[in-house]
Amino acid sequence: MESNVTAGKSIRCKGNFTELLFLSGSRFSFGDRVINLVCFRGGELSAAVSRAGGEPLVIEEVEVAPPQAWEVRIKIVCTSLCHSDVTFWRMKNSPPAIYPRIFGHEAFGVVESVGEHVEEFKAGDTVVPVFLPHCYGCVDCSTPRSNMCSLLPFQVSSGMPRDRDSSRFSDNMGRTIHHFLNVSSFSEYTVVDVAHLVKVDPALPPEKACLLSCGVSTGVGAAWKAAEVEEGSTVAVFGLGAVVEGARLRGAAKIIGVDINPQKFELGKKFGLTDFVNPNEIGDERSVSQVISEMTGGGADYCFECIGLASLMQSAYESSRKGWGKTIVLGVEMHGKPLSLDTRRILEGKWITGSLFGGIKAKTDIPILAKKYLDKELHLDSFITHEVGFEDINKAFELLNEGKSLRCIIWMDK
Amino acid sequence: MESNVTAGKSIRCKGNFTELLFLSGSRFSFGDRVINLVCFRGGELSAAVSRAGGEPLVIEEVEVAPPQAWEVRIKIVCTSLCHSDVTFWRMKNSPPAIYPRIFGHEAFGVVESVGEHVEEFKAGDTVVPVFLPHCYGCVDCSTPRSNMCSLLPFQVSSGMPRDRDSSRFSDNMGRTIHHFLNVSSFSEYTVVDVAHLVKVDPALPPEKACLLSCGVSTGVGAAWKAAEVEEGSTVAVFGLGAVVEGARLRGAAKIIGVDINPQKFELGKKFGLTDFVNPNEIGDERSVSQVISEMTGGGADYCFECIGLASLMQSAYESSRKGWGKTIVLGVEMHGKPLSLDTRRILEGKWITGSLFGGIKAKTDIPILAKKYLDKELHLDSFITHEVGFEDINKAFELLNEGKSLRCIIWMDK
Ligand SMILES: NC(=O)c1ccc[n+]([C@@H]2O[C@H](COP(=O)([O-])OP(=O)(O)OC[C@H]3O[C@@H](n4cnc5c(N)ncnc54)[C@H](O)[C@@H]3O)[C@@H](O)[C@H]2O)c1
Ligand SMILES: NC(=O)c1ccc[n+]([C@@H]2O[C@H](COP(=O)([O-])OP(=O)(O)OC[C@H]3O[C@@H](n4cnc5c(N)ncnc54)[C@H](O)[C@@H]3O)[C@@H](O)[C@H]2O)c1
Ligand SMILES: [Zn+2]
Ligand SMILES: [Zn+2]
Ligand SMILES: [Zn+2]
Ligand SMILES: [Zn+2]
Repeated sequence: MESNVTAGKSIRCKGNFTELLFLSGSRFSFGDRVINLVCFRGGELSAAVSRAGGEPLVIEEVEVAPPQAWEVRIKIVCTSLCHSDVTFWRMKNSPPAIYPRIFGHEAFGVVESVGEHVEEFKAGDTVVPVFLPHCYGCVDCSTPRSNMCSLLPFQVSSGMPRDRDSSRFSDNMGRTIHHFLNVSSFSEYTVVDVAHLVKVDPALPPEKACLLSCGVSTGVGAAWKAAEVEEGSTVAVFGLGAVVEGARLRGAAKIIGVDINPQKFELGKKFGLTDFVNPNEIGDERSVSQVISEMTGGGADYCFECIGLASLMQSAYESSRKGWGKTIVLGVEMHGKPLSLDTRRILEGKWITGSLFGGIKAKTDIPILAKKYLDKELHLDSFITHEVGFEDINKAFELLNEGKSLRCIIWMDK
Repeated sequence: MESNVTAGKSIRCKGNFTELLFLSGSRFSFGDRVINLVCFRGGELSAAVSRAGGEPLVIEEVEVAPPQAWEVRIKIVCTSLCHSDVTFWRMKNSPPAIYPRIFGHEAFGVVESVGEHVEEFKAGDTVVPVFLPHCYGCVDCSTPRSNMCSLLPFQVSSGMPRDRDSSRFSDNMGRTIHHFLNVSSFSEYTVVDVAHLVKVDPALPPEKACLLSCGVSTGVGAAWKAAEVEEGSTVAVFGLGAVVEGARLRGAAKIIGVDINPQKFELGKKFGLTDFVNPNEIGDERSVSQVISEMTGGGADYCFECIGLASLMQSAYESSRKGWGKTIVLGVEMHGKPLSLDTRRILEGKWITGSLFGGIKAKTDIPILAKKYLDKELHLDSFITHEVGFEDINKAFELLNEGKSLRCIIWMDK
């Protein structure tokens, strides 16, 4: 690690840093990509700010306050767009909608400075921020059964997690800009709580590490941790993404994708998808759950909902095998609708749950996934279908909305 | 077993019996209770028939046809009333409502005769009929993961399970009387499919065996099989009954009962209930789930709904611990309402399922429970709060509806 850090000239950045920085001008190289770690000065930093829900992001000058106690300021190297950003960005009036706001929660970066009490990280560490905390100390973080930290209970927050109202971002008029999901990675620099940061092996290419920050970890985790998919089982994935890779890793025999985007079948095959159901192409006589039931002899052993529609969560549940089927909801319901289950059918012994981050515990499980990638067990490369520069961040939104991308990497410093 | 059967005089009962019977006049003795096995003659048998939903049952002469292939005709020794009888008896117009009908599915009896292909049972066997089949041969019956037989898929049927339209009951005008839940035990004799019958140790007192036929097995099974309650855990039981005994047997540390009937606290203590919440007595400021959350430090490890109201299934789910809580629905929704779950909260990692028969596999698990009773591990005695003769069967309905009974044993031959 240290070998990556070459001391640059000392610049005292504004704010009461708890560490003097010798990092500005440092160059980090990841393969043939060189990242300049420029210590920021007020008024020179930029972020892609959402001024109103559903409107294109605007690249603006922002000020990023120094990290306070238990906080870490990181330079974002690259970030990508997860559907959760889009879901909350689209919400115009519902309670979590609060603007201006900096979205983004899937990223890779380098630690620039740390606040008081931070011993786990030091400047120069290669890290991925995570929306779900892992404090190590609370009852949930101490048991393998839960990933729902109770020191910093998860909320779709707009500020720092230990002090839900405070923000580290302000615009050039000194007005507050709100955070999103404890990360806000659509910014050159961001401040995150130590519980929301995971150190990763610098051998990992930035864009691959970035994938582990949310989407891929969630999907692979869902098969691995939340569902504990068994070898030889049948799996149905509603909304194609990383669950397919997780199911393949766990040795599933049949992996059925359900998606309205036929291109996802070709993409999915790279991860082990064996079958595909396009709900728009099955006709009116049979429901998706009937089709899956026929394909699996009574229902899939494991069903995953990765879209965010209550109707599809229900359909996933109905597609699971009576007696032992498990359904895992990952999708964040786009309209906040409740899930309705038939109370007669609920007695058939199927299980349903939902999961944040696929049940993974960030600090212990992301390094395991990173190692699996370096060991060539976990496939990450094909998730990256597009790459853009930071100035083209709105293009990443378009690609996702048009269903063209799996993941579009947004490079901060291209 | 053979020792119980004393050959009586031969009577050829009407119908095409596949076995000549030498049982009429046999006496079975269970402790100091002597049961006369009178082979029936057309027009001498009686059953408590429901002629219309919600109306008192009428003791009528009925004719019970001989058992066909894979069927067994049994003499009911005693039966009891489960809330599922009441739920379906109350339904006046919904699809499963079909009259005249013979309710009752919790019982103990003696095999009177068997149909073709029946090798598992012979006249004189002491048995409990069960609403949920166990065929041994199908994929579900062959795996420990499921109790949802797929040879005879469970339905709230009104006829025999292999031939859903046919009935073995008729009234004195020769008109069909319908079955209920594959058992119809409110009759001196009934015919059940071999998959719906379990042989029990004749050492078991009839009224204790009767409890294992549905309610107690379901409740104890739910803690044992469906939830796999762990030692030292916290449990909340909505609607007091046998789950409490199951949780005690599994070594739960805290067992909280939720019931609007305060008498159930005293009854529950006999089975290990440690705490009690009466929803009518907690005031308006806190919900039941908040109260349980406070009592358990964040929610119970296991919650059970044993009432049959969607709102309470939701409340049970909300009372379970984020991260790992499991909710098991046993209640049959009285109004057929769906269960609605908050899609934001569903991501918190709790699990919910429902279970028929608490996940037990009748033919293998009921003998285990019977042995646990004989070994004085399983408490059954206190479940029996009342006993009536067959002619007073409507009294059993009153006692249940008034919340006075746990189980009221109805003796056919008092
Ligand atoms: N639980 C978590 O921790 C967590 C983490 C990350 C993402 N998410 C959520 O998971 C979901 C998926 O996120 P993503 O980034 O993979 O999104 P994505 O846009 O990359 O993938 C969604 C897929 O669903 C398909 N789809 C859309 N509508 C459909 C329909 N009606 N029927 C069938 N398929 C349909 C799309 O074609 C697309 O392939 C979102 O709801 C997101 O908010 C949850
Ligand atoms: N899943 C299965 O296989 C299975 C098997 C047997 C019974 N059941 C169902 O289980 C449920 C219970 O059956 P039972 O025979 O034990 O019934 P029961 O009447 O003996 O017990 C129900 C309890 O719920 C309480 N209750 C009623 N309304 C309540 C409310 N609003 N809040 C709190 N408590 C309330 C009553 O006071 C009573 O103590 C019924 O729905 C029955 O149909 C299901
Ligand atoms: Zn995400
Ligand atoms: Zn924690
Ligand atoms: Zn019952
Ligand atoms: Zn079977």
